[in-house]
Amino acid sequence: MLSEERIREALSELDGWSLEGGALSKKFKFSSFSEAFGFMARAALAAEKADHHPDWTNVYDTVSVRLVTHDAGGLTERDVALARAMDSLA
Amino acid sequence: MLSEERIREALSELDGWSLEGGALSKKFKFSSFSEAFGFMARAALAAEKADHHPDWTNVYDTVSVRLVTHDAGGLTERDVALARAMDSLA
Repeated sequence: MLSEERIREALSELDGWSLEGGALSKKFKFSSFSEAFGFMARAALAAEKADHHPDWTNVYDTVSVRLVTHDAGGLTERDVALARAMDSLA
Repeated sequence: MLSEERIREALSELDGWSLEGGALSKKFKFSSFSEAFGFMARAALAAEKADHHPDWTNVYDTVSVRLVTHDAGGLTERDVALARAMDSLA
């Protein structure tokens, strides 16, 4: 589990993520379904490689992501790493 | 917009879909994230081809789908067709 200080630090380093209900959350907006799903496909590969998976919802050109480490009951560095990877893919 | 009778008929033809908040809804369960996302990738291609897209959420091995024709303000045959396509892909 991350400390509150580490979470604040991570949020400041990441691009547009916030803390919602204990999860790192962000809404990614794209120009089309194709762009949105293309992002999901690349993020899915990154998630599978890291064996750490997002909770996410797609509605047309928007992908809403929640990251939390269910096994740890909170946020860990794995969430921060996946958030960073998603930022770089978007 | 589909008639109530047509909706009942469609639900009886489809596999495990229900009507929730005016949308055709189904939770698909798979054996892994890889299987779940593989289904999403194939369904995304079908959706893009039909230019009709699902509202869907993925949490690890589960994909929750809602189908509704936003432009029409309700269910249409396009939703039934996409539901049928998703059943055949799953």
